Amino acid sequence: MYRSHNCGELRAQNINQNVVLSGWVQRVRDKGHLLWIMLRDKTGETQLFLEEGTTSAELLAQARDLGREYVIRIEGRVIERASKNTNIPTGDIEVAVSKIEVLNSSETPPFTIEDDTDGGEELRMQYRYLDLRRKPMRDNILLRHRMLQLVRNYLSTQEFVEIETPYLIKSTPEGARDFVVPSRMHQGQFYALPQSPQTFKQLLMISGFERYFQIVRCFRDEDFRADRQPEFTQIDCELSFVNEQDIINVFTGMVKTIFNEVKGIDLGEFPVLTYAEAMRNYGNDRPDLRYGMKFNYLTESLSGTDFPPFKNTVDAGGDVISICAPGAASYTRKQLDKLTDFIKDPRFGMQGLVWVKYEEDGSIKSSVDKFFDEETKKAWLTMANATKGDLLLILAAQTNAVQKAMSELRIEMAKQLELRNPNVFAPCWVVEFPLVEWNPEQNRFDAMHHPFTAPQPEDEGILDTGNARSRAYDMVINGMEVGGGSIRIHDAEMQNKVFSLLGISEQERENKFGFLIRSLKNGAPPHGGIAFGFDRLCAILAGTESIRDVIAFPKNNAGRDMMLDAPAFIDQLQLNELGISTNS
Amino acid sequence: MYRSHNCGELRAQNINQNVVLSGWVQRVRDKGHLLWIMLRDKTGETQLFLEEGTTSAELLAQARDLGREYVIRIEGRVIERASKNTNIPTGDIEVAVSKIEVLNSSETPPFTIEDDTDGGEELRMQYRYLDLRRKPMRDNILLRHRMLQLVRNYLSTQEFVEIETPYLIKSTPEGARDFVVPSRMHQGQFYALPQSPQTFKQLLMISGFERYFQIVRCFRDEDFRADRQPEFTQIDCELSFVNEQDIINVFTGMVKTIFNEVKGIDLGEFPVLTYAEAMRNYGNDRPDLRYGMKFNYLTESLSGTDFPPFKNTVDAGGDVISICAPGAASYTRKQLDKLTDFIKDPRFGMQGLVWVKYEEDGSIKSSVDKFFDEETKKAWLTMANATKGDLLLILAAQTNAVQKAMSELRIEMAKQLELRNPNVFAPCWVVEFPLVEWNPEQNRFDAMHHPFTAPQPEDEGILDTGNARSRAYDMVINGMEVGGGSIRIHDAEMQNKVFSLLGISEQERENKFGFLIRSLKNGAPPHGGIAFGFDRLCAILAGTESIRDVIAFPKNNAGRDMMLDAPAFIDQLQLNELGISTNS
Repeated sequence: MYRSHNCGELRAQNINQNVVLSGWVQRVRDKGHLLWIMLRDKTGETQLFLEEGTTSAELLAQARDLGREYVIRIEGRVIERASKNTNIPTGDIEVAVSKIEVLNSSETPPFTIEDDTDGGEELRMQYRYLDLRRKPMRDNILLRHRMLQLVRNYLSTQEFVEIETPYLIKSTPEGARDFVVPSRMHQGQFYALPQSPQTFKQLLMISGFERYFQIVRCFRDEDFRADRQPEFTQIDCELSFVNEQDIINVFTGMVKTIFNEVKGIDLGEFPVLTYAEAMRNYGNDRPDLRYGMKFNYLTESLSGTDFPPFKNTVDAGGDVISICAPGAASYTRKQLDKLTDFIKDPRFGMQGLVWVKYEEDGSIKSSVDKFFDEETKKAWLTMANATKGDLLLILAAQTNAVQKAMSELRIEMAKQLELRNPNVFAPCWVVEFPLVEWNPEQNRFDAMHHPFTAPQPEDEGILDTGNARSRAYDMVINGMEVGGGSIRIHDAEMQNKVFSLLGISEQERENKFGFLIRSLKNGAPPHGGIAFGFDRLCAILAGTESIRDVIAFPKNNAGRDMMLDAPAFIDQLQLNELGISTNS
Repeated sequence: MYRSHNCGELRAQNINQNVVLSGWVQRVRDKGHLLWIMLRDKTGETQLFLEEGTTSAELLAQARDLGREYVIRIEGRVIERASKNTNIPTGDIEVAVSKIEVLNSSETPPFTIEDDTDGGEELRMQYRYLDLRRKPMRDNILLRHRMLQLVRNYLSTQEFVEIETPYLIKSTPEGARDFVVPSRMHQGQFYALPQSPQTFKQLLMISGFERYFQIVRCFRDEDFRADRQPEFTQIDCELSFVNEQDIINVFTGMVKTIFNEVKGIDLGEFPVLTYAEAMRNYGNDRPDLRYGMKFNYLTESLSGTDFPPFKNTVDAGGDVISICAPGAASYTRKQLDKLTDFIKDPRFGMQGLVWVKYEEDGSIKSSVDKFFDEETKKAWLTMANATKGDLLLILAAQTNAVQKAMSELRIEMAKQLELRNPNVFAPCWVVEFPLVEWNPEQNRFDAMHHPFTAPQPEDEGILDTGNARSRAYDMVINGMEVGGGSIRIHDAEMQNKVFSLLGISEQERENKFGFLIRSLKNGAPPHGGIAFGFDRLCAILAGTESIRDVIAFPKNNAGRDMMLDAPAFIDQLQLNELGISTNS
């Protein structure tokens, strides 16, 4: 028997009991005649106690030989601690050791197994199994476990059926590159790993399951960017006989349940914004609603202005937009200059920044005092609901450009003013995304979501213009897209129309999606679905920036598993069997 | 709104309510002035009713245009049925239709969507989304969903942590061929898809999680055999600080829970047999314990026999074994000759079959009456606990061969005597498997389970002989292995010894398992684990022979997805990007 108790459970009421514990040596404290060992297992820590005179010399010598991270089994008796430790649950007791069995020794770990380790990220990735011993990492994995069970149980009670879809499939339509798997049995042919189970979940609706879910691995062979993984996990769902509101209800419920159970937070109502509203008010289809600074459009009121930057913009049909940065009237000249530099960056390409300070004493100062009278500026402040001490920031440019730049400025101001409270969670839905967007390089339309997304019924007539809105929706939390989906096309004719709009040839359609188009002709019900980035959702709830912190064995930014050293070269024999050669 | 109610829920108490239903047209029955439509959704069926005179001519015409599997939305009022149908839960009512909306039409399906379909397997695989509409298939998938939740909830309450391990990894040690994935970013290098998460789950024990589980996809590129899939699902578990008995307790509990919840069956105690006992008593390490016919060894009692087949066997150190086939004394000469032919098949290679009939009248007849007296034959019958009407079957040969042949004969007799009741479930554990087995082709030992399996401590001294027993165990139900695992080696030195025994070179060790050997030196706790074939377990509970029946989108025996038509050729462009060429 390895244990009668766990290391985390012994309390004052266990005093005088004989116990058996197993675990890892966290540390040994040797005061000469007294020696303490902190023993750790998954439940917590218990202090072991040895004393010269009482403890045999042999046992003391054995204890002195123990190193950090040794695995031991001990027998002993629970005694009251002389000096209690109120920081740990077992702090009232310690165990007077009568026997130590070394189950395994340990080399000195390459970094300390402590909450704040001295190991760099490379080293920790290489020895991931040791990094996972640290409590912050362990807690992340336990949180993820809990979220997995919560999500599945929630969806199961909502009558979703969990169905596992295949991993060895055919090219999927997500737009990124597929990972492929050469077939040995069918030489020259390849399976593809799914970028998502998109087609399968639609087929399951056509099969009549009505509500499907799966927490599933997906694969994308992208050029790696920070915090992207070639394999990632998705909460994947599809429903029949639903509209957007049904989906919003079910998945608002899911996310509220998670936050409630995991963090005890009631997220309240989720605002629903159209894409057009989100762009107009925040210049962003993933608005961070933890803070205000909604856009105010000065354009109309400036129709007669002489101030050249505004006049030019208004004349060219652009927009003049303000945001009100709360309490930032105290910004220095230097700070304002830095903001100007920020928005003049080529990525945003603004010509300049206009600012208006609503000073604490009620006076108004601005960078355009020469051009605008007090009343005008007061009107701007009123329009922005500014109060004393606030700072108005104004940009003018072509609408898309100014929205984008102002969105970045809004986020930058939130950063500077520390409005992005990590303990506040502001969710919303964004709906009615455009169906397609123009791809100037390929000279064609790309699907904004994917080719199976239904257009808004009232926009079906203007499909060819590229201006139709879609029935796609995203869930956004704190400026991050956590989930997205759409009502799908369930009509074969409409599906072909959209394929045509996207410039997908008849042959490509048949080759890639033949089975799907055929299935739409076999009694496909109206349906729609959604997928949540599970890694991201876990990271948000764990309060960490990187999804690597919530994945047990992640890859680095170059797609390498540092611990396994994968990918790796394979035998020529294996290549021969597969009927492939490498070109290098 | 697509529905106010589901098709399966309307009852007498709903009479006079106005309802909205959506679903599929199961069938239309047109009696001229009366017309019925059976509408189906995932919850069941409701009969719709239209009547000339009451129903408008337009609506009737619309109803007459509906075909099988059309998707419709209807409005109507619940009325009492004239002739009730007690076969379906909604049989007391029907819905008088006031509006029909066709949501989608349907081509005539290529096979009937009925419990007993007219579609062949190929066609059903190609139109899997239609096959899944049939109730038996649907029920299998729902059963699987339920089992997924049951298993995860059971393991979660047993303090297991669900941890997702990567799919893009490095070659695994399971012995079968890996599927590989060429890396575009690291040209010439490949990821491998996991044959199991074996190394990861051991690393997670070294990380201190103590109890891990995952229901996970695994991949094996094997030459396809009947009822094997290139990708399959496994309940994968690992535990620290445990011995065999702990594992047996936890997973007996898991399987008992499944059978109890899903089928209301109490499986009772699970017998535990050693491998040696299983081989001795049933000639098989996967004994079907639904029936008896345990082996009886006559060898010792025949030491002085003259009967040549037995004499030769005994002299050569082989064994003479009997089984008692209950109630088979009535077997005809022809039936006995067929049995003799059966065991003379080259696969079993027996020279002949000796039979002894214990007739209903108490007389004894046998194929060896000339050689053995009544008393001897009576002793054989007594040894086998035979009662009147039973048939004794006796084989003699070298021990391994006769055990194997007798095992096949035992199974054959169970088939013929219909002792393999599909509604009876007889589980057992088989333990103490041999650690290695001799591979005469490669002239070396192969691991019987895998190279990480620990030897029995008392056999560590005889490792080199190849006769050491291991700490491996299997769970067997009705003659099928449903799960298997082992206590692992947690000591780096012992791991290296076993690698040496298996002829794995230092370089191969470092290359394939370097990280694992290193991890064993960093405080690896004693640990062990198990994996269950989830597809097989679902098939057993669904009462089907083929795992294809419990997989939503299976591949055929040649590893092809008939619906997707995968694997498939890919673009030259894609091959170029990956830096590989196909040889054909």
